[in-house]
Amino acid sequence: MHDTNYAYQQLLDFTIQIFKKIGCPQADAVTAAEVLLSADLRGVDSHGVARLAGYVRLWEAKRVNATPQIRVIHETPSTAVVDGDSGLGLVVAPFAMNLAIEKARQVGTGWVSVQHSNHYGIAAAHAMKALEHDMIGISMTNASPLVAPTFSTSKMLGTNPICVAAPAGNEPAFVADLATTTAANGKLEILQRKNEAAPQGWVQDAEGNSTTDANILKKGGALLPLGGDREHGSHKGYALGAVVDLFSALLSGANYAPWVPPFPAYVPMPERQPGKGIGHFFGAMRVDAFRTVADYKRDMDDWIGGFRKAAPIPGQERVLIPGDPEREMETERRSHGIPLLPAVVADLKALAAKLDVVF
Amino acid sequence: MHDTNYAYQQLLDFTIQIFKKIGCPQADAVTAAEVLLSADLRGVDSHGVARLAGYVRLWEAKRVNATPQIRVIHETPSTAVVDGDSGLGLVVAPFAMNLAIEKARQVGTGWVSVQHSNHYGIAAAHAMKALEHDMIGISMTNASPLVAPTFSTSKMLGTNPICVAAPAGNEPAFVADLATTTAANGKLEILQRKNEAAPQGWVQDAEGNSTTDANILKKGGALLPLGGDREHGSHKGYALGAVVDLFSALLSGANYAPWVPPFPAYVPMPERQPGKGIGHFFGAMRVDAFRTVADYKRDMDDWIGGFRKAAPIPGQERVLIPGDPEREMETERRSHGIPLLPAVVADLKALAAKLDVVF
Repeated sequence: MHDTNYAYQQLLDFTIQIFKKIGCPQADAVTAAEVLLSADLRGVDSHGVARLAGYVRLWEAKRVNATPQIRVIHETPSTAVVDGDSGLGLVVAPFAMNLAIEKARQVGTGWVSVQHSNHYGIAAAHAMKALEHDMIGISMTNASPLVAPTFSTSKMLGTNPICVAAPAGNEPAFVADLATTTAANGKLEILQRKNEAAPQGWVQDAEGNSTTDANILKKGGALLPLGGDREHGSHKGYALGAVVDLFSALLSGANYAPWVPPFPAYVPMPERQPGKGIGHFFGAMRVDAFRTVADYKRDMDDWIGGFRKAAPIPGQERVLIPGDPEREMETERRSHGIPLLPAVVADLKALAAKLDVVF
Repeated sequence: MHDTNYAYQQLLDFTIQIFKKIGCPQADAVTAAEVLLSADLRGVDSHGVARLAGYVRLWEAKRVNATPQIRVIHETPSTAVVDGDSGLGLVVAPFAMNLAIEKARQVGTGWVSVQHSNHYGIAAAHAMKALEHDMIGISMTNASPLVAPTFSTSKMLGTNPICVAAPAGNEPAFVADLATTTAANGKLEILQRKNEAAPQGWVQDAEGNSTTDANILKKGGALLPLGGDREHGSHKGYALGAVVDLFSALLSGANYAPWVPPFPAYVPMPERQPGKGIGHFFGAMRVDAFRTVADYKRDMDDWIGGFRKAAPIPGQERVLIPGDPEREMETERRSHGIPLLPAVVADLKALAAKLDVVF
């Protein structure tokens, strides 16, 4: 069975209909669908429409509130804490990012920590909102525990991604979006589906031994922090994942560390809940809060141009700028459609039938 | 020849004298000495008093101004850009970090980008200044190019460290301080002195091949970004190092990418200088700009306690919290002195003789 390509607009309309069917107001359904499908456009297939049924199951399990009263519960001129009222992270996160942008407009930068939310799609979807305002955008989120800290067999952190998006002038924007692990869980899932081995340094078994078993997470194993092992700097990946947790949950009052709620609705909630829901953190920095936009953009174009001219290793075509592969994928997919695996298509058709929506 | 231990106070007094001899005002000499020696106390021997002669050589080469007019050249309520007037980074950075803290006091957070500076010691020395104010501190700096981006043989970035320091309650503070490379250059220098091989994944040769030759940087090789190779996420380490460069130099107007001035005074300045000096970036976030300090500290202690109780891999004693090793080292060295290699002692004695200071 081959993948089938679907036009972006078709998948967007369908996704909006699904979110409306579970009770989201029209505007929220559009926001959520756009955020979710930005993953498909950018080639992060694990985080896009393939997860739509998962979001619906969270709503069925009453872990997601389709009509949240999203509120600012604390603020200063440059900061805020947002209570997502258990709404879709796909809706709560844009609210919080917009608030960060508004604060940056007022006092130069804005920083918003979020409690009581759910999974928010890809980090880049939110950070990139700053670009159109000539601001640098920052987005991060904690997630349910899959990652063992250096020297441990306990899964204590999520893959806790960080995105930094910085505008340029004539060059496209710089967009770094990275899980703080050697490999994102989505990449491991691809190997599982293909029944292939994982590279050394991605995962460990229940005793903490290095392994290439891509299914090891179901047997007590764990993903490894960026770096892989101590000798190669895994304590740095662990520290970065921890920073994401502190900014997202310790500053907001969300759940943290191994107590972050899971995405799959069939996984029971952690017995202990030291906070509320999942936590995110967003930042916006106005470029002209530091120097003129013209000077900054001239230098950014020069910076990017310098990296484009860096010598490639023999056999490699070119040096990439963070964001290049995803932007090229988006151009391709907006033109030629988004390829979906047969299993994903079947899942969406079942969802369509259940909620009485045409796919 | 064995290391000799020297009392912290003795080294501090000596270092203050040296900085005064090159013309630093008394207060600046004390600040610079305290920042420099915080590296020795925390066990980062490559960045401490062993570099004192190097700083003096930069002054002799007229690359460091001992009496800088450090100025704020742009600001908003939450941001500033500082011109370090070619002063010691050891003096410019505390000025900028204090400004970030002051802005955080006013509007919740403060963010300061710095141009026209020099090397600033260890990142943690500055970020940790926020802790006593119940703020989270952030510190990063660019540095001269030693690191090749993924797929390249060109050295385009420095080891560009990031430090995040977050206060706790009864537990000691969380302090993550990490070069965005697999291994810091200081670790490679230790292997060079011992004539030992480097682990795979730390460095590549001039053609971009993996190598264990610890001397490869002198033969056209490069340090590798955290992750090591593409399969293990080196594009993430590259992206993080790039973010440090953007925040430190593109927001401030400092030199960036391969054009950052070198630390050794005998290395010629880059032919091209798109900005001024070296760039840093500092942040301070008031905890109570997000939630009460009491709630935050309770949760931080719980977070840290959870990681302390995480199961260690058989054969490992315990799971570390970022900052544990350095804090324990500081306690040990404040009691028993700072061990210096014979070569460092000889270097300091020569410096003392040259500048007519008693060692």
